[in-house]
Amino acid sequence: MLSDSNKLRQHGGNLKAVFQKYGPRDYLDFSANINPLGLAPAVEQALHESIKEVINYPEPDAVTFNRAAAGYLGLDPRWVISGNGAAELIYLLVRAINPRKVIIPVPTFSEYELAAASVDAQVIPVFLRAEDRFAWNADTIIKTMAQGDLLFLCNPNNPVGNLIGQESMLLILKAAEEHGTLVVVDESFRDFVDDMPTALPFLQDFQNLVVLYSLTKFFALPGLRLGCAISQPQLIGRLKAMKDCWSVNTLAQIAGCTATKETEYISNTKEIISVERDYLYGELQKIVGLDPYNPAANYIFLDISRTGFGSGLLRERLIEKGVIVRDCATYPTLEDKYIRVAVKLRPENIKLVHALQEVLEG
Amino acid sequence: MLSDSNKLRQHGGNLKAVFQKYGPRDYLDFSANINPLGLAPAVEQALHESIKEVINYPEPDAVTFNRAAAGYLGLDPRWVISGNGAAELIYLLVRAINPRKVIIPVPTFSEYELAAASVDAQVIPVFLRAEDRFAWNADTIIKTMAQGDLLFLCNPNNPVGNLIGQESMLLILKAAEEHGTLVVVDESFRDFVDDMPTALPFLQDFQNLVVLYSLTKFFALPGLRLGCAISQPQLIGRLKAMKDCWSVNTLAQIAGCTATKETEYISNTKEIISVERDYLYGELQKIVGLDPYNPAANYIFLDISRTGFGSGLLRERLIEKGVIVRDCATYPTLEDKYIRVAVKLRPENIKLVHALQEVLEG
Repeated sequence: MLSDSNKLRQHGGNLKAVFQKYGPRDYLDFSANINPLGLAPAVEQALHESIKEVINYPEPDAVTFNRAAAGYLGLDPRWVISGNGAAELIYLLVRAINPRKVIIPVPTFSEYELAAASVDAQVIPVFLRAEDRFAWNADTIIKTMAQGDLLFLCNPNNPVGNLIGQESMLLILKAAEEHGTLVVVDESFRDFVDDMPTALPFLQDFQNLVVLYSLTKFFALPGLRLGCAISQPQLIGRLKAMKDCWSVNTLAQIAGCTATKETEYISNTKEIISVERDYLYGELQKIVGLDPYNPAANYIFLDISRTGFGSGLLRERLIEKGVIVRDCATYPTLEDKYIRVAVKLRPENIKLVHALQEVLEG
Repeated sequence: MLSDSNKLRQHGGNLKAVFQKYGPRDYLDFSANINPLGLAPAVEQALHESIKEVINYPEPDAVTFNRAAAGYLGLDPRWVISGNGAAELIYLLVRAINPRKVIIPVPTFSEYELAAASVDAQVIPVFLRAEDRFAWNADTIIKTMAQGDLLFLCNPNNPVGNLIGQESMLLILKAAEEHGTLVVVDESFRDFVDDMPTALPFLQDFQNLVVLYSLTKFFALPGLRLGCAISQPQLIGRLKAMKDCWSVNTLAQIAGCTATKETEYISNTKEIISVERDYLYGELQKIVGLDPYNPAANYIFLDISRTGFGSGLLRERLIEKGVIVRDCATYPTLEDKYIRVAVKLRPENIKLVHALQEVLEG
């Protein structure tokens, strides 16, 4: 393994761990990138009404939710498999492919490396460079293609936030096809992105493409777990045969069916995130020493190396002020120079800015 | 594979499929073996209060619930891993062991064979004999031990209901240890059994033992998914490293923590099931042509071969009367000669008996 698995297994959004270390308090949690509007009211109501349903088994293979998700994404349901969060599907994919070598950009979402380790695959890292602001480089990825059976691409990348354009994606997919490499494009944050350069249109032409989609971020359902993988029906059929049919619980299925129809909540979220992302990015740029990266989704990556604080200490000082940020030191190569913050609503974003100002500007 | 996977993937409790084929109606579902008391009131209340929590990630690795489950079972939490239903843990175990050959009694719960197929393992069947009323036979199992890396034992067995005694279990475990075979004892229905001959006391002495436990049946949570695997800490640690840390959703964790403290609901359930099992077994014995097996848990297996009905037709005729039973024709070797029914509350059990009388005795 490239990295320390205990480090990799640390994620944002672990409030319980914060409570245990620093005491319970009404924290503002910017460490998990969840829709700040919370549950859509119709979803919350549907969940209350459906609690009595948990005494029955979930619908096997989440057939009804698959149809809802396919409709939402404009796809044929036979191209969709649902999972207990996108995380289940990441582990399922590595088991289905059973790769010897997995190409993983660095830094990126840590579950890819953990999933590769779960099948004892070797990680072929593609280092994104700090001096390029961790921008994608299709050429570098393509050069490694011959070395791997499987490639993970997180678009936009987490935690850094950079997008891969469709032209680069097409080049990558063609190179992958030549080398027999399966490409998994994780679009978990797609709904937060204005003009998302999605890989979905490439599915028709590329058997070697899987797109991952998560409903937990945009629809604020991380506690319920809900995600999809989309690919040509042959691979989807194989994946379905490799897991139990009940892995998506009843409430997640109902939440997903309801959420994808909430057009007003969906458009409100997109508008609010777009406005607040610009606002927060602008305010963070003004704080001495902070170097925020241009964000694409609902989170902002910040280089803090000129603040005089390491990321662990800065996180701790912010927790004292009631604000939790993501210390990115758990990601390989990032050391203690970066943090990530979610975009929330205006009053919360203002509190984050004030807390950062107090800690950094005194 | 020994069996047709499409058949194996058919389980009881799929109300949606019944609605689609026969129309929606207020059926009494005896096809899934769920606590007829439904949710404990405290669990139902905790779920309503916790819906607002689903906007946060679940506690990683379900640490708090693990402690609750360990306390309930009288174990050290380091010996416990929680899963998205026992089903997730069955698939996880076969991946961890990656067996070439899996010994599976026939008939038994179908997910063992599906899980074996998911890692392309060969199934070594141990045929339980109809002429023995599908009783366990430790000698036959022990004779096959040299042939397999992994052995599944469902205790009490599903669907037939027979228990393995602790003496037989000890002989099996010793033979398995000699041959390096891992034994997975599935005690999903343990809490319904009077004087359960549990394998838990053998864990200390046998590294090659895993006990599975499900909370979905006894606590009526199948829609939420919640189960545990119990083994020595070394294997538990390996299993934890092979799955994502969020697989047990927030509401399942909360339901599990609450349910295992509901001592009154627990003792009520045990008493009611004990009484109703005897009642229903007695009434079924009186119906012409039915040969019910002596039940141990909350379900009764019936030989219907002398009724003149095949199990598919009998199920259909009962559905017309608003009652769903489990057609056991999906289990290998059982053909169309058996059905299984859950034990429910008195008024429901009476309706089942009446429906059977009407169909079979006219």
